[in-house]
Amino acid sequence: MKFNQFITLLTDFGLKDPYVSIMKGVIYSINPSVKVIDITHNIERHNIIQAAFILASAYKFFPKGTIHCVVVDPGVGTSRRALIVVSNNYVFIGPDNGVLALAANQDEVKKVYEIIPGKYIPKSSSNTFHGRDIFAPAAAYLSKGVKPEDLGNPVSHYIVPNFTKPLLKNNKIIGEVIYIDVFGNIITNIPRNVIEQANIEAGSRLRLKIGRTVYLLPFVRAYGEVGKGEPLILMDSFDFLEIAVNQDSAADMFKVSVGDKIEIYFTSR
Amino acid sequence: MKFNQFITLLTDFGLKDPYVSIMKGVIYSINPSVKVIDITHNIERHNIIQAAFILASAYKFFPKGTIHCVVVDPGVGTSRRALIVVSNNYVFIGPDNGVLALAANQDEVKKVYEIIPGKYIPKSSSNTFHGRDIFAPAAAYLSKGVKPEDLGNPVSHYIVPNFTKPLLKNNKIIGEVIYIDVFGNIITNIPRNVIEQANIEAGSRLRLKIGRTVYLLPFVRAYGEVGKGEPLILMDSFDFLEIAVNQDSAADMFKVSVGDKIEIYFTSR
Amino acid sequence: MKFNQFITLLTDFGLKDPYVSIMKGVIYSINPSVKVIDITHNIERHNIIQAAFILASAYKFFPKGTIHCVVVDPGVGTSRRALIVVSNNYVFIGPDNGVLALAANQDEVKKVYEIIPGKYIPKSSSNTFHGRDIFAPAAAYLSKGVKPEDLGNPVSHYIVPNFTKPLLKNNKIIGEVIYIDVFGNIITNIPRNVIEQANIEAGSRLRLKIGRTVYLLPFVRAYGEVGKGEPLILMDSFDFLEIAVNQDSAADMFKVSVGDKIEIYFTSR
Repeated sequence: MKFNQFITLLTDFGLKDPYVSIMKGVIYSINPSVKVIDITHNIERHNIIQAAFILASAYKFFPKGTIHCVVVDPGVGTSRRALIVVSNNYVFIGPDNGVLALAANQDEVKKVYEIIPGKYIPKSSSNTFHGRDIFAPAAAYLSKGVKPEDLGNPVSHYIVPNFTKPLLKNNKIIGEVIYIDVFGNIITNIPRNVIEQANIEAGSRLRLKIGRTVYLLPFVRAYGEVGKGEPLILMDSFDFLEIAVNQDSAADMFKVSVGDKIEIYFTSR
Repeated sequence: MKFNQFITLLTDFGLKDPYVSIMKGVIYSINPSVKVIDITHNIERHNIIQAAFILASAYKFFPKGTIHCVVVDPGVGTSRRALIVVSNNYVFIGPDNGVLALAANQDEVKKVYEIIPGKYIPKSSSNTFHGRDIFAPAAAYLSKGVKPEDLGNPVSHYIVPNFTKPLLKNNKIIGEVIYIDVFGNIITNIPRNVIEQANIEAGSRLRLKIGRTVYLLPFVRAYGEVGKGEPLILMDSFDFLEIAVNQDSAADMFKVSVGDKIEIYFTSR
Repeated sequence: MKFNQFITLLTDFGLKDPYVSIMKGVIYSINPSVKVIDITHNIERHNIIQAAFILASAYKFFPKGTIHCVVVDPGVGTSRRALIVVSNNYVFIGPDNGVLALAANQDEVKKVYEIIPGKYIPKSSSNTFHGRDIFAPAAAYLSKGVKPEDLGNPVSHYIVPNFTKPLLKNNKIIGEVIYIDVFGNIITNIPRNVIEQANIEAGSRLRLKIGRTVYLLPFVRAYGEVGKGEPLILMDSFDFLEIAVNQDSAADMFKVSVGDKIEIYFTSR
């Protein structure tokens, strides 16, 4: 794979401070012809699981060869390693805390390198801003054609975070809320193949158990299939089961948070 | 007109979720050499009128041939159509819910197409994220030189939202608040030509009626012409009558919201 | 110095309104091949000192020749001048209110011009949006190779804001909070050379006086050197003394605001 001229950035830096722009300045100083695209900088501070989910949902829509650079890094300046993970179609750069693993594993990891200061990455980096001093330069050099092996050493293991898997059992699926988007849509960890396995089809009604309450909700194809303000379940654009309210916030209606358990009861056919 | 290498994006997706970046990934995957520029992604959720106003205020400052792609789409996945609207100098892409009409009509609509899945836009799109599956690809293909007629069929009508028009009557203008910006400036629907018709000149004083209160305010050319914290009226950069407070929030001072009626009394000369 | 193909934007416009995108549209209309990069648009409204600090912390990471365009401009439309400041490696564009001075002086000012409407900048600009009508066009023309002297006249003075300097006296440093980032890190006006002059070394403990309370804090190299939730002092990525809490907000813990006085007591060796 040839790494191309696209670098994405995904951080928890927010957009008030100059940190993101400093990373861009560093990248353009090394490779003026690259294109830098923001995935998001509004990851909750130090929320590795959230960043891993967002990366996994977005990385595959970029041109093959895109370099995805992730800085959600509570361990900056400690002994945690800085990684380059080469997968089938992409390359991922970030701290070795699990933030890259969900996306990289999905795309099949080919090789993993630990970034080592040397010819390209200076030794005297800060201990507080590796986004600027290590990750951005590594991404920029890769985009210029520098090989991963010239930026670091191959390593044999890397951290994979624990993502709870959904459980399909008789006429019940047990899952968990993994993300709530800005619309208040509740995204679960239940992927399409589990729904297909359960033979659940659009048009049916599902019982949704949250806490000790059971709701009867239509399983539809589009938000607009129910009236405004009415709740629904659908397979969303991430290909996960999503609980939503047409033109309103499901998170507000059902009062759930990321990590909450949910159960789906369906009638076997 | 030749569509050029610029695509703008205007959505209500916010900047926390990966949705905007996914649209960019899709666009760059189809046309790596295009430039994508954000107008804003902080439109109030599903606020079509606000998006139409923002688009109308911004579209004309971009290079001729720019492709403006708007996704404020409460009807996603229902039978509402996806449009390509070719106007005099620009092309607009978005749902047929009125969001494009104010800008496109201002620039004179030449031809309107309904996007139909086919050679370029795949049939099996999601029902929840047409920004990714329909609007972004359509914009990207147009920027590569694909013709609108190869992306859809000509249609003869499209939805135009109801924008309240200001009323000039004797020594009174009746208008309405159409937008409040982040500074708290109150932007009305009263355009420059109505002020000129009423013979109102900078330097005069105007009576402004909001609710049942009448304020006497100076009509000036720049915010800094009154003291800090003092209210004023001026023609703003959108060429609409604006009620503002020098270095403070008029929306806070006058406690108005979008849609509120305002009246301007002036002395005929 | 040749001005290159990069323009940065730094404003207090926020990202809800279309103002920033309008500036980009104007720039790309004049020079379609330039690259525009956002430093931040979330400067507190009209906070010149904050914008000056952010600019000074970010400008130097961009390629030499980058044109930095700053619009934090409470005096828009009054008699305040619009400046082009050419320094050793960069060029700065913005209002003459001090917002450019900290960065430009750091990079050594070579020449200062007042922008005068003429061949390039139209006379009939608005009085409310010089970002669109003066600063963006000036930046775009410079990026195309137009000379500063063709956009304005040389001037001999410009406004420099009052930045409080830290004071080193016996075993005490008196400083002030200049910025609080989104993580709640408290950035002071005490630069590295003052710490070196005082012979303070990583690994020591410092007494920090805020208001009438004295805290004993470790002076470390990285956030992760103390336990989660524990306070610390370090030299940050801006090369200023910073008070932080590992993975939490120091601003919340110490309840300080920008402008607050802080004192550091150390033991002379």
